[in-house]
Amino acid sequence: MKLDLQTELCRRLNITYPVIQAGMAGGPTTAEMVAGVSNAGGLGKLGAAYMVPDAIRDTVRAIRRLTDRPFGVNLFTVDMTDDLSRVREVQRMLDPLREELGIAHGKEDLRTPNWFAEQFQVLLEEEVPVISTAFGVLPDDAMREAKAAGRTVMTMVTTVEEAKLAEEKGADVLVAQGSDAGGHRGTFDITKHPYGANIGTFSLVPQIVDNVRVPVVAAGGVMDGRGLVAALALGAQGVQLGTRFLTSAESGAHPAYKKALLESTEEDTVITKAFSGRPARGIRNAFIDHVENSGVAPLPFPSQNTATGDIRKEAAAQNDPRYLSLWAGQATRLLTDGDRAEEIVKEIIAQAQELLK
Amino acid sequence: MKLDLQTELCRRLNITYPVIQAGMAGGPTTAEMVAGVSNAGGLGKLGAAYMVPDAIRDTVRAIRRLTDRPFGVNLFTVDMTDDLSRVREVQRMLDPLREELGIAHGKEDLRTPNWFAEQFQVLLEEEVPVISTAFGVLPDDAMREAKAAGRTVMTMVTTVEEAKLAEEKGADVLVAQGSDAGGHRGTFDITKHPYGANIGTFSLVPQIVDNVRVPVVAAGGVMDGRGLVAALALGAQGVQLGTRFLTSAESGAHPAYKKALLESTEEDTVITKAFSGRPARGIRNAFIDHVENSGVAPLPFPSQNTATGDIRKEAAAQNDPRYLSLWAGQATRLLTDGDRAEEIVKEIIAQAQELLK
Repeated sequence: MKLDLQTELCRRLNITYPVIQAGMAGGPTTAEMVAGVSNAGGLGKLGAAYMVPDAIRDTVRAIRRLTDRPFGVNLFTVDMTDDLSRVREVQRMLDPLREELGIAHGKEDLRTPNWFAEQFQVLLEEEVPVISTAFGVLPDDAMREAKAAGRTVMTMVTTVEEAKLAEEKGADVLVAQGSDAGGHRGTFDITKHPYGANIGTFSLVPQIVDNVRVPVVAAGGVMDGRGLVAALALGAQGVQLGTRFLTSAESGAHPAYKKALLESTEEDTVITKAFSGRPARGIRNAFIDHVENSGVAPLPFPSQNTATGDIRKEAAAQNDPRYLSLWAGQATRLLTDGDRAEEIVKEIIAQAQELLK
Repeated sequence: MKLDLQTELCRRLNITYPVIQAGMAGGPTTAEMVAGVSNAGGLGKLGAAYMVPDAIRDTVRAIRRLTDRPFGVNLFTVDMTDDLSRVREVQRMLDPLREELGIAHGKEDLRTPNWFAEQFQVLLEEEVPVISTAFGVLPDDAMREAKAAGRTVMTMVTTVEEAKLAEEKGADVLVAQGSDAGGHRGTFDITKHPYGANIGTFSLVPQIVDNVRVPVVAAGGVMDGRGLVAALALGAQGVQLGTRFLTSAESGAHPAYKKALLESTEEDTVITKAFSGRPARGIRNAFIDHVENSGVAPLPFPSQNTATGDIRKEAAAQNDPRYLSLWAGQATRLLTDGDRAEEIVKEIIAQAQELLK
């Protein structure tokens, strides 16, 4: 049998099973979720891109109290400089949604914090075993520091070219993210592909595997043991699952978001820049329709994300999924409701073992 | 071992290996290709949608002279009524391309033939074992005739809802076509999804498998034995490959088209209505750019296909890939050049057997 759950990736990451939980930014990846996945033998990851550096430190310590297994933290490596040249127009376009929610009109003096250097420093200081990035490779100096400290560097890629570049720059593990994936994917440069490089997971994985030497992890549409075995067959050494953990017991996702996920089908998602200015896959809702029908282009990332923050926050407070970002992959019919992260990993492994028996 | 190449689908179709060659319309699927795939133990399929009924009869007889194994023929079940209300505008938009090629301006008195009834009759008379359709299920009366005659009916589907409908209407086998697939996919109704229902193959297959009882075949991005084993892991009982056979020795694809396929990467395709009025995935070229940048919407299918026919024919005569329809899936890096169809099937099987050993 050539297909085996104990892959080189497992040895590389010092984990038992090649199941990685995606480090989704914005709150769903709690310390409990990360530790639960790692305790089950997989690799939990904290999505820390939007977190204040001190909060990352606190959460990493909380994870450590819950598990002695390896885990990861995911950051963004994209330029966080604001471009607010069109902020007035965009805020006026968004204001009707604020009126609907009963909050003040949008401000024009926005400013997105750029915490990358401090965030990265926390990961080094707290000895986070796996440093993962989206939207690009670690900057050269950070890469050197991470490698010198013996950390494993994981990079999300969406094309063969990105994969080759990441390998060349020193990434130890590549996550091949197909267009099936939910939320923001890792496309390095959205100038060439304004809606992300949308290569289906099934097509992307073997083409990346054939063009790099480092272990490749499949992401995008992986939901169960069938997906794990399929990914291994395509040449991956493991899988990364994001959406699958959003409806877990430990998920920090808003209850209205979980409900929308559980009620959605494969036909419900779209790729939109409406929330953040970067393309991301989510369940179509009134917010997306409003922005996309407005004729006003979103601000570039991260400014659009900052501009829409008050609306999303208030929608969450009002339990109103119409204006929340409902990030989701294309296989939500395979979701379960309220399983513990640990159970999810165990179930995936049991199903894969059964298929491979 | 739960994964096995001898699936229920093989017994149902009376074939040795669960490898189906897609019935791609427009000429690439020669009698030699179809027979080659069937002789290797798979199922070859003639893409007959644009063929005059008598030509289908002749080709089916040619296939029979080359193989005594089962094979299939694929037809379209979509309404072929022309809507020429905007033909003048579209022809004027296309005329610069004709001038470039040195041919006469486009005509306004187009007419698309509707041969479905006669095509279907030929399949019945010639006792074609497998009747396959794109863009919808066989009409009720045709379904009854096909079943009464003991034929296997195969339907291409792109969503769970389409899969359920096709099963309910009597389809014996469903081909779950992910967004990775090249050319026109089977989306029944493009009103809801103007660019087709674009669910990645990896996500689509298990969700369809979970919702129907008939055998499911995975299509879209499947190129080799890895893809076959991955499809089986996801719950499919077989695979359908289109792009993979376009560069085979027996392929009727134009040499300039084969060259473009072999030189393309996963980043080169787009989904466009420029050629036919229905969404289809192909390598971006000057024709697509011209139509999409023109500000003039294509005619509805099939009228756009009819309107652009003279341009594509002349571009072929001039060996000019700029104005050809270069249909391609998202995994063209896995193509081989000039292998015989029979070798391709054997290689896929050998690779899958090795993985499953």
